[in-house]
Amino acid sequence: MAQTIIYNVEVTFGDCDPAGIVFFPNFSKWMDASSLNFFVQNGVPTWRELVKVNGIIGTPLLEINTKFLMSATYGEKLQIHTRVVEWRDKVFIQEHTIKRFEDTLCIGLETRAFCTKHPQDPNKIKIVAVPKEIKDLCQ
Amino acid sequence: MAQTIIYNVEVTFGDCDPAGIVFFPNFSKWMDASSLNFFVQNGVPTWRELVKVNGIIGTPLLEINTKFLMSATYGEKLQIHTRVVEWRDKVFIQEHTIKRFEDTLCIGLETRAFCTKHPQDPNKIKIVAVPKEIKDLCQ
Amino acid sequence: MAQTIIYNVEVTFGDCDPAGIVFFPNFSKWMDASSLNFFVQNGVPTWRELVKVNGIIGTPLLEINTKFLMSATYGEKLQIHTRVVEWRDKVFIQEHTIKRFEDTLCIGLETRAFCTKHPQDPNKIKIVAVPKEIKDLCQ
Amino acid sequence: MAQTIIYNVEVTFGDCDPAGIVFFPNFSKWMDASSLNFFVQNGVPTWRELVKVNGIIGTPLLEINTKFLMSATYGEKLQIHTRVVEWRDKVFIQEHTIKRFEDTLCIGLETRAFCTKHPQDPNKIKIVAVPKEIKDLCQ
Repeated sequence: MAQTIIYNVEVTFGDCDPAGIVFFPNFSKWMDASSLNFFVQNGVPTWRELVKVNGIIGTPLLEINTKFLMSATYGEKLQIHTRVVEWRDKVFIQEHTIKRFEDTLCIGLETRAFCTKHPQDPNKIKIVAVPKEIKDLCQ
Repeated sequence: MAQTIIYNVEVTFGDCDPAGIVFFPNFSKWMDASSLNFFVQNGVPTWRELVKVNGIIGTPLLEINTKFLMSATYGEKLQIHTRVVEWRDKVFIQEHTIKRFEDTLCIGLETRAFCTKHPQDPNKIKIVAVPKEIKDLCQ
Repeated sequence: MAQTIIYNVEVTFGDCDPAGIVFFPNFSKWMDASSLNFFVQNGVPTWRELVKVNGIIGTPLLEINTKFLMSATYGEKLQIHTRVVEWRDKVFIQEHTIKRFEDTLCIGLETRAFCTKHPQDPNKIKIVAVPKEIKDLCQ
Repeated sequence: MAQTIIYNVEVTFGDCDPAGIVFFPNFSKWMDASSLNFFVQNGVPTWRELVKVNGIIGTPLLEINTKFLMSATYGEKLQIHTRVVEWRDKVFIQEHTIKRFEDTLCIGLETRAFCTKHPQDPNKIKIVAVPKEIKDLCQ
């Protein structure tokens, strides 16, 4: 069964908009932090280290899908439940459920791929197959 | 045919992450700005004004779906092409295509609803039917 | 002697810029969160509650001064040491020292005032005297 | 006499906080964008290009000082007037005055230095003397 790793966030005043609620791109920002935290908690080195080992610089997004169910405001503590729901050859799908204890605030699916710098053009990136050793660590 | 309104963005250094490319939640931030700009360019008063007329405080998101095709970096000028692709009774769907001139960087669909403050609880919001006068202005 | 309250932050990938280090306005964002946390930890209600009691909506900034000594990167845990170094009649000065355990990364001074909505114009704010009961709680 | 370069910003909904006004670290974000724009408008290559020529990766901040005089809200157009008020051997001071046409909203002084990657440790940066050719371009 897929592992779930929980990442904690406390909403700040500056995370909220004039309606007094979390400005929604911040939910994506926290899901991104929880995505990386998922790998680090499973023993994968952070990108800064991994690049020296196998050239991998991160897991850029190919697609996101988020459903917003309830809002949140500053001072509240949130818990992001993150797991990989599907591993394919070249991509994987992470699911992030942002909860305020019992309440589910939003559910996000991210399609990501592991990438290296493009060998011919350092300003571009190149998708590589999901490294087996990373997949093994996360199951 | 649905109107398309273009919103311009210039990517800053601070919009980019350690990979040197736009940190993806900023694309959502710009789509949100383009969503409001779409209404303002069509003659709809901004939320700050509209709340005094009919209580509407904004168009919170129910769902987002974004496909990322190409990255962007600082100093680049982007154009967000925004239109409403579907009006339903209670919600509407906006499509935002972020281009760098000929290149399409990402395509986002947002499901939004018009909202007022909740009559019983000022800390909550309440979805209302799409106002006919706003829909008429935007077609 | 002035109380010091510590606020904890973990730097995320998205907090960093193309140089791989924290984009400096994020230090200001965290100092702001630590400023509010200082009051809440001392028993002052959050602005959302306080506005109902005495109309106070927050402590906007009149001036900031920050010295940057060392950089930080994602995955690092930081501690913000916050205290009020001066209470005047209408303003107060908060000092925030951002540390990474033994290292001091930056030191910020913020001059702030307590504010209410302007009685004649709800789009403006009005500085009020520092409430004695808040000052008493924080010493 | 020092050159002044103007950088334009339009405040978005997401730039504002629950008080309905610009969350102050965004002013620092815009001053940073205007700082880089100042050099680019004066013919200095962007950091991404400059690093290949002389190793310079940017102009990190040593100190900021900002006075806030008036607030701003979403939908407003701001103009940032940027100039170098002092060139020293190792640092320079940029002044950013953020205006809303006639109104001055805030005034920021930034002390910055030109930096390269540290020759011994790629995770660190090293301050270098202000390059004469850059200084010449900006006067």
